[in-house]
Amino acid sequence: MNTIQTLTIVGVGLIGGSIGLAAKERGLTRRVLGVGRRQDSLDRAKACGTIDEGFLELDPAVEEAELAVFCTPVDQIAGQVLQAARVCRPGALLTDAGSTKAVIVRSVEGHLAGGVAFVGSHPLAGSEKRGPEYADANLFQNRVTVVTPTPHTDEAALRKTVAFWQALGCRVTCLGPEEHDRALALTSHLPHLVASALAGLLPQELAGLAATGFRDTTRIAAGDARLWSAIFAQNQAAVLDALGHFESRIDAFKKALASGDWAALDALLAEAKRIRDALGN
Amino acid sequence: MNTIQTLTIVGVGLIGGSIGLAAKERGLTRRVLGVGRRQDSLDRAKACGTIDEGFLELDPAVEEAELAVFCTPVDQIAGQVLQAARVCRPGALLTDAGSTKAVIVRSVEGHLAGGVAFVGSHPLAGSEKRGPEYADANLFQNRVTVVTPTPHTDEAALRKTVAFWQALGCRVTCLGPEEHDRALALTSHLPHLVASALAGLLPQELAGLAATGFRDTTRIAAGDARLWSAIFAQNQAAVLDALGHFESRIDAFKKALASGDWAALDALLAEAKRIRDALGN
Repeated sequence: MNTIQTLTIVGVGLIGGSIGLAAKERGLTRRVLGVGRRQDSLDRAKACGTIDEGFLELDPAVEEAELAVFCTPVDQIAGQVLQAARVCRPGALLTDAGSTKAVIVRSVEGHLAGGVAFVGSHPLAGSEKRGPEYADANLFQNRVTVVTPTPHTDEAALRKTVAFWQALGCRVTCLGPEEHDRALALTSHLPHLVASALAGLLPQELAGLAATGFRDTTRIAAGDARLWSAIFAQNQAAVLDALGHFESRIDAFKKALASGDWAALDALLAEAKRIRDALGN
Repeated sequence: MNTIQTLTIVGVGLIGGSIGLAAKERGLTRRVLGVGRRQDSLDRAKACGTIDEGFLELDPAVEEAELAVFCTPVDQIAGQVLQAARVCRPGALLTDAGSTKAVIVRSVEGHLAGGVAFVGSHPLAGSEKRGPEYADANLFQNRVTVVTPTPHTDEAALRKTVAFWQALGCRVTCLGPEEHDRALALTSHLPHLVASALAGLLPQELAGLAATGFRDTTRIAAGDARLWSAIFAQNQAAVLDALGHFESRIDAFKKALASGDWAALDALLAEAKRIRDALGN
């Protein structure tokens, strides 16, 4: 893709910081502006080399942006995109890194000034860690980014969004926003809920007996609670639906276990193993 | 501890192989004999340096054992211990690495010839991997091994068992066999069931959207199905009890989500995060 004159990152944590670093290391942009809520975060992001200049206010940071990426909590993205669209230049492209898409896209689409485009994105990267110190220029290498166009999405804006994520190292998959949210309810939001339910059960006196299996299974429960309750709030119906499927599956395990039907339990465990083995590590 | 003249490992996979390797590297034993079901496994174990000599039959491999460790599936351990006790020398110590303890200890205790002792053990190490190729001399370093004496356990045999695991690098915790099984139902067996239920839900067309969170949360579902159904069969009541607690917790998440009570959801997520953060990585 052509060099981006000014790339603005709104939210300079793990994801935003990694986008800034990767874009600079790969020569995709001349300069990276960062927006944060605290001067301290901006100073740390600048010290880590993830941004060139920091701003506490959105407007001055997006006025000259050719591309702005919103890496803030999902319940803040739509409002910030609408605010930015009022001040940025015609031709500017806005995208995001939010874990939900339907509410955000619906809130933004049809409400932007002419000449400014928004395309929803969700890079499937990141971890339970937070902060610019964890920024990693290779975070997106070989990861999937889901880009979520609608019938109203501008074709050139879509192409540029896809090219941007690919230039960061991602493989890009396009899905509708609702389709994205239904899929991620199962592959990401339900696992977070399940890991949290499991972690919450551990009494302190048994912590010494929680080995690798417990740690792996509950690792994502260390994610930020506020960020995650906002994700659940934006994807309520699909997560409830996924949870219903999970409860049915748990019930099948319980029936096999309670009745001592070891062949049935074996079959359930073998099916899970087959699916998990196919994923690789 | 004094040098073990002959250490016999029954089951030369990841755990058994790692015990052999670690005992040799740490100079705990003069020779390691391995028992396996297939000549091929024994040859590979010998090639990896985890055993000095391989046997397809139990009896000749335990006749001269000073210490024998049974690293076979939990539903085979008690029978093999009883068989070994009939041929091994007076003073021999038998222990195991099984993930359940009450059924095994109950089946063995009081049924051994005079002079032969059994003490139940469970090293909290290992992974979803299998086979002597994965043997690792440092597998036990800083891991916990639970040793499960009963009021009938010989004091000297208990001391020697504890010293053996400590010499392999473990921290040792002593619990009664039933207490062990109740604790592990929550910290290991329930997570396996939950990870398997979650993995089993993933349709093939969504596999490309299963990122780090899904992979971590379901990793242990790649464990061997037969090994795990045997574990569930030996710890049925405690796992059902743990599963009941888990279902209640899932229900609390579901109620908060369905009613849009984001403060309640936040509190559940924050409690899980606090507990998970305290565990470390």
